[in-house]
Order: sequence, then C-alpha cells, then structure tokens
Amino acid sequence: MTIRAGILGYGNLGRGVEAAVQTAPDMELAAVFTRRDPKSVKTLTGVPVVSAGDAAAWADRIDVMILGGGSATDLPRQTPEFAKLFNCVDSFDTHAKIPEHFEAVDQAARGAGKLTLISCGWDPGLFSVLRCLSESVLPRGRSYTFWGRGVSQGHSDAIRRVEGVRDARQYTVPVEKALEEVRSGANPELTARQMHTRECYVVAKGGADKEKIASRIRSMPNYFEPYDTTVNFISEEELQRDHQGLPHGGFVLRSGTTGLKDEMCELIEFRLKLDSNPQFTGSVLAACARAVVRMRAMGQSGCRTLLDVAPAWLSPREGAELRKALL
Amino acid sequence: MTIRAGILGYGNLGRGVEAAVQTAPDMELAAVFTRRDPKSVKTLTGVPVVSAGDAAAWADRIDVMILGGGSATDLPRQTPEFAKLFNCVDSFDTHAKIPEHFEAVDQAARGAGKLTLISCGWDPGLFSVLRCLSESVLPRGRSYTFWGRGVSQGHSDAIRRVEGVRDARQYTVPVEKALEEVRSGANPELTARQMHTRECYVVAKGGADKEKIASRIRSMPNYFEPYDTTVNFISEEELQRDHQGLPHGGFVLRSGTTGLKDEMCELIEFRLKLDSNPQFTGSVLAACARAVVRMRAMGQSGCRTLLDVAPAWLSPREGAELRKALL
Repeated sequence: MTIRAGILGYGNLGRGVEAAVQTAPDMELAAVFTRRDPKSVKTLTGVPVVSAGDAAAWADRIDVMILGGGSATDLPRQTPEFAKLFNCVDSFDTHAKIPEHFEAVDQAARGAGKLTLISCGWDPGLFSVLRCLSESVLPRGRSYTFWGRGVSQGHSDAIRRVEGVRDARQYTVPVEKALEEVRSGANPELTARQMHTRECYVVAKGGADKEKIASRIRSMPNYFEPYDTTVNFISEEELQRDHQGLPHGGFVLRSGTTGLKDEMCELIEFRLKLDSNPQFTGSVLAACARAVVRMRAMGQSGCRTLLDVAPAWLSPREGAELRKALL
Repeated sequence: MTIRAGILGYGNLGRGVEAAVQTAPDMELAAVFTRRDPKSVKTLTGVPVVSAGDAAAWADRIDVMILGGGSATDLPRQTPEFAKLFNCVDSFDTHAKIPEHFEAVDQAARGAGKLTLISCGWDPGLFSVLRCLSESVLPRGRSYTFWGRGVSQGHSDAIRRVEGVRDARQYTVPVEKALEEVRSGANPELTARQMHTRECYVVAKGGADKEKIASRIRSMPNYFEPYDTTVNFISEEELQRDHQGLPHGGFVLRSGTTGLKDEMCELIEFRLKLDSNPQFTGSVLAACARAVVRMRAMGQSGCRTLLDVAPAWLSPREGAELRKALL
C-alpha cells in the first residue's frame, strides 16, 4: 500500500522532502501545504499546493505529514497543532528545547490517537542514533561530535546583522588535529577552539570599514569569540559563484575501553559528508515518514524520536529481504 | 530491576561478555554454562560455573542467556535448543545461513513464548544496522564494506592446515586507495583484489620448504587466490610476542545521490577500530541482552535481529534522559 505523504512548508527542506518522497518506491506526495498564497507556489513535481489553513480537510487523504518549517518559530507551534490531525514528522533541532517540544507534541498526539516523530534529520537524528548505539555498546568511554565542513545558517545570519555587511556565508570546519587525537584513543578534553574553526566569506557594503567588520565578527560572543575565526572579504559575484551550495556534515566518535581492567581501546566513528544539507535532511525525513506510518499501524501513539525507531522500519524492504541482504 | 544474565560457552567471546555484563550498571551474571567439566573452568569474576546440561534448572533465575559459541557447529544446534528455555542472544555470523538460522530459532522461541536476538555483534550486527540506516536514508546509492586491519580467524586456520606450517596469523587489510575512491563519491566497481590485501605471518616447521608454503597459501582458492597476499615467515617467539592480539574493525560506506535529478552527492561512513574483537563483540552482546529483556517485556516473542531493535532499547538510560543527553 502506497504511503500518502503531505508536506507543510515549501522552502529548501520542503523541496528536499519532495524529491525524496517522489523517488521512493512506496510513497507518493498528496499535496504541499503553505501559508503563502497557494497560487504563488510552484512545486518541482507539479503536486497540488493547498493553503495550510485547509489542511484539516485532507486528514483522510494523508497518512503522514512532513513538516518542513524552521525550529525557531514554526515548529514549536505547528507540530503540536498538526500532531492532533495527522501522523507527523518534524526536524525540530533546537537541542536544549527538545524535551519541552517532546512533551507538547506527546500530549497533542496521544490525545488524538496519532503518532509524531520529532527531531528527525542528522543532528538531531542520525547523529543521536549513533551516539546512543555507540554509548550503549561502549559504556566506558567518551563521545565527541564535530561538525562540518559546512555552512551554518545561524552563523551566516549573525554576520549579516553586523553593520556594513551586505551578505555573508559562514563555514564551520572541524580541526583535523583534534579529530586525529580522538581517533588515537587519547580521550582528550577539547575546548570549542580546539575542535572547530570558523571561516567567514563576507560581502561588505560600499564604503564600509572592513577592519571594523572583521573585528566585530571575531569578537561576537558565543558565535565567534570562542573560535579561531577567519574573515575573507569577497565580491557579490564571488559569493554567488562559489558559495551558493549548502554543504554540511560532521563526525560522531566514541572512544572507549573494554575488558575488566579497561585494557583494550575501541573506536567508533560515524561520518556524514553532504553536498546538500536540505536534500539529505529531506531524505531522512521521508524515511522517517515511512517509519511513523508503520509504528502507528503497530498501535503506537504519542511522540517518538529516532531513538525509538528500529532500523528496519525506515526501509521499504521486508524483514526477510533485509536479513538476507544486510545481515 | 537488575537483569540476570547467563553465558553459555566460555572462550574468548564468553570472557568478553563476562567483562561487559559485570561492568554494566543494570546487569549481573548469574552463571556460566559449559560443556566442559565445570570444575575445570575458572571465571574471571568468580561467577559459578554450571554444566550446560543442567541449564534448564536455571530457567527461573536467568532473564537472558548469552551464547558465546561458534557459528560453524555450536550455534546452529544450541540457539534453537536454548531459545525454547530462555530469552537468548547469539552472534551467529555465517552470513549465507542467517535466513535458515532465523527460521529455526523463530519456530523454537515462538513456540515457547520466548524471544531470541540472533547475529548480534558488529558484522553481522552494527554493520548491518548501518547498512540498513544508510540505505534507507540514501536509497539511490551504493554500499561498500571494508574489513580490517584485523585478524581473520578463518584465514589463519586455513594457513595452519598447509603442510609444513606450525602456526600462523592472517591480517585482512583494507586498501586505502579503494577507500578514498569510495569516499570521493565515484561509486566504483571494485574487485576483491582492489578492496583488500592479505598479510600472513607464518611459523614454519623445521626443515619445511618455505617457498612451497608461500606458494600454496597464495594460490588457495577463495581464501587467498583472489587477493594480493604477502607471506612473512617469522619465529615462534615473534608470533607470541607480536601477534597475540585479536584486533579488527572495518568500514561501512554508502555513497548516494539526492534531488530529483541525482544532482547532489552524499556520503555516509561508519568505522570501527577495535583492539579486541572478542571483547567488543561481547560488549555488543551485553547491550543486546538488555534489549531482548525489554522487547520480551513488551510482549514480543520469536526471533529478531538488530534491525528490529530501536537504539534506546540497548541503553540502560531512560527515554527522557536519552532525549536530553543525545538528541
């Protein structure tokens, strides 16, 4: 039976979900829901565009709604609201607020006998799964997460707010030496500065004081001050030509010991290297949408995360086929 | 409630399981079961040793039995037998026979209202989980597995059967160039020879013809003929001094595309680097034993694999704590 998915919100992430759903063998996209004027939105695959306000009328035609909104203002409101109407998947990624979001969604979904999977994507998401797996099989050890090389939207936005800046792109870059130290099994204590550097590409407004811009960026608390930050001034043309992609990725590592006397050292490393952060995240969300439909069919309701999802539930293949091919 | 585990079979793997269970916060080891004379077996932690034939009498005192036997002759017989008496975990790793083993165990366990998790470890096991996750989130792509650098017991045994060989150790080594090619996103077709080399350390019997030994090893079908194989002759002392460990590990990689036109390339890489293969495998089995007890408490029975296990079930931590710490 084909899974009928909907998408709420049609930005980069929504388009990534669209591509993933439309190329999946067992899913189809019923509609895209938007808060904009539906006539102003043209989908990549010609799927109908519907006003978000009319979504409730689609409850019987959609098995799972995939939320493409942002974590700052969209999802805290949208996920609990839609969790009452649909089985949902979101990519809520404000780490510190996940417990609170979980509770709100859990209450909404349980009351309605629906199931929602939150914080899907790669971090939180696949990285969380890997942290859980590696901590569980290697309890005496230490976990590390490195991000990048990739574009951080939040840091790029922070630069854009500096006076005299027209546009900017910020790359988070893991420090190779720190990665190697972790891989060696040394279990180092690492500061923010030792783990990542920050590369900024900035288009200044005409006549702006570049020295001053660079110094303001470098001294920005939390965002840049705790890191070695490089500021490169480039032209608008260079920004358009060389920095339009949204690559990202990173590493989850756990180094730990086994044996009664901690005599052996074992290393687990997981890496993502993504040309397109939103397309990959969209692809994860599509697999999660499949899992939600299956878990709901098992009778589950309320809120869940990827930590509650068995790997087989993400796959379109049957159990016997998976065992034969992957074990 | 503390999970009471038993171990059947007390070799390298059984000792690895013992160390993992005894250092886990939520588990205790009730007894070790052996087919040898129990008086002849001394455990690392002083746990009682019981004859395997008397195991049935322990059914009320053990929540999960962890099988430490080998896949060639022990587990095909033992797992279905013990699956009728206990919830069990095994590390059956003869890939081609897993479907058959699954059916036999499923029938035994379901009939008895017990649950058994088979083929736990890292390959099959964690590697299978990573293959499933990465294939599910990146359906249009290609998966690769590289093993090593590590000791292959099967290949070491094969060398020991060559005339004139007293003892031997074989290391499987991944070819760095092939790894890099996969990481580049080129999705290469790779032959066995292109992916791995084989390093042999051989102690010859006095007066044996070393040229002949080396040539016999290199030309052995399946085991060595399809690979570039190096044969090093060393002394018994060197073997004892430099080759007593059982390191292993490997890589699971998936490279695939996203977007409607396959326009973006994404890479997923998972790596294990293990000082002690049996201790790490024992540690995975212990985490799986925890999952089996939980899944049985949820009402599940029959046979399962790690593909059916949600990550959270492997962890001693509670759901809310996991979400706060790992998401």
